[in-house]
Amino acid sequence: MSNLTPDSAGWTFYTAPGTCAQAVHIALHEAQATFRLVKLDFTQQQQQSPEYLALNPKGRVPALATPQGVLTEVPALLLFIAQTHPQAGLAPLDDAFALARLNELSAYLASTVHVAHAHKRRGARWADDAAAIEAMKAKVPQTMTACAQQLEAWLAATAEQGPYVLGARYSVADAYLFTITGWLEGDGVDVQAFPRLRAHHALIAQRPATRRALEEAGG
Amino acid sequence: MSNLTPDSAGWTFYTAPGTCAQAVHIALHEAQATFRLVKLDFTQQQQQSPEYLALNPKGRVPALATPQGVLTEVPALLLFIAQTHPQAGLAPLDDAFALARLNELSAYLASTVHVAHAHKRRGARWADDAAAIEAMKAKVPQTMTACAQQLEAWLAATAEQGPYVLGARYSVADAYLFTITGWLEGDGVDVQAFPRLRAHHALIAQRPATRRALEEAGG
Ligand SMILES: N[C@@H](CCC(=O)N[C@@H](CS)C(=O)NCC(=O)O)C(=O)O
Ligand SMILES: N[C@@H](CCC(=O)N[C@@H](CS)C(=O)NCC(=O)O)C(=O)O
Repeated sequence: MSNLTPDSAGWTFYTAPGTCAQAVHIALHEAQATFRLVKLDFTQQQQQSPEYLALNPKGRVPALATPQGVLTEVPALLLFIAQTHPQAGLAPLDDAFALARLNELSAYLASTVHVAHAHKRRGARWADDAAAIEAMKAKVPQTMTACAQQLEAWLAATAEQGPYVLGARYSVADAYLFTITGWLEGDGVDVQAFPRLRAHHALIAQRPATRRALEEAGG
Repeated sequence: MSNLTPDSAGWTFYTAPGTCAQAVHIALHEAQATFRLVKLDFTQQQQQSPEYLALNPKGRVPALATPQGVLTEVPALLLFIAQTHPQAGLAPLDDAFALARLNELSAYLASTVHVAHAHKRRGARWADDAAAIEAMKAKVPQTMTACAQQLEAWLAATAEQGPYVLGARYSVADAYLFTITGWLEGDGVDVQAFPRLRAHHALIAQRPATRRALEEAGG
């Protein structure tokens, strides 16, 4: 039985260092969830191995194998972890408007910010031509700066209530924002221009669950 | 007071014909929600007007103005509508795994399928060079076909339970899948190869809420 085979009884979490899966890894520790960690080796294209594709035909991380089945997609996993661990208080499950704000940020990070970032190294998803892939890469500092402006404005709007994405209370969306703002500098964004994003990143970096996830995932 | 100004007491829903906002429009009617409809004129770039940007600084549809504030992003709005109209039964709110499956499909549609589609007409988001934009457009039939394969496999896996995304019961994810499968033919996908997606599209097309949303939005 290979290391990729999910446990039949518990949760098995598939990640790779430096990816969006970090957000889910942090959320698992915030929830004090019990899970086995599997790190895929992207340098060996392990995400495209037949064994992994049988679990997640999209060939991406994160994936969470549970006794009920395999779940994927960061926004879905963040909410699933919050809902299955209500005592951890990781999402405002009974406040429809506040939960919609959390999901709104998750959806924006997944569908716009993460996608803008992916045009740097994964341009081959959307064009075959080498010059086109270079042209996409060249625009990443500009698109990620535009995203950072939106995110800075979000934090400005909630700042009066508190330092978190939803204001006063930490939620799984903070783990997601932290993960994505960790990409800004490498994407050519002048992070000095975004003091609220920097302060948020520093705040979330200190949390025990964040530190544990980063240590376990490695670089 | 312009037509774009949100109502202070109720919900105001901002859409444009042929966009992803259609999924939310359908969900509003499935929920029998009360709202005022505002159609933005994309040919006049109304989504970039100062008045609209004050409501939604991202300059996109959908947006839903509520007395508590403005919400955006399809996946967040779908869940918000389901949660605020529980009597309509539009999402398995108390079954964490089933809800995660719904959110997983929503997140995949928003972050991968919709994004693949947007490379046809909105390539300027990710590159400035005209040849690069053409190269992106050229790959859309291939990327959308790969997405259709994933979606067809999803429906195959749930088919034993029933014809909907979650099997036996209709949910807001069906409105979203319907909206996106409506783009496949125009994106150069051979839809004959995807009988389950076609049958699902035809099934959702017949629902009164779907027909009403399409009639109201116009072409
Ligand atoms: N929409 C997905 C995106 C997942 C995704 O793109 N993961 C990347 C890492 S950040 C990946 O696994 N890439 C591997 C590859 O492209 O081969 C989510 O939110 O989970
Ligand atoms: N991630 C957003 C995407 C919204 C989006 O891209 N909407 C498009 C229509 S499908 C739009 O408003 N485009 C106008 C523009 O790009 O100017 C969501 O799921 O709501």
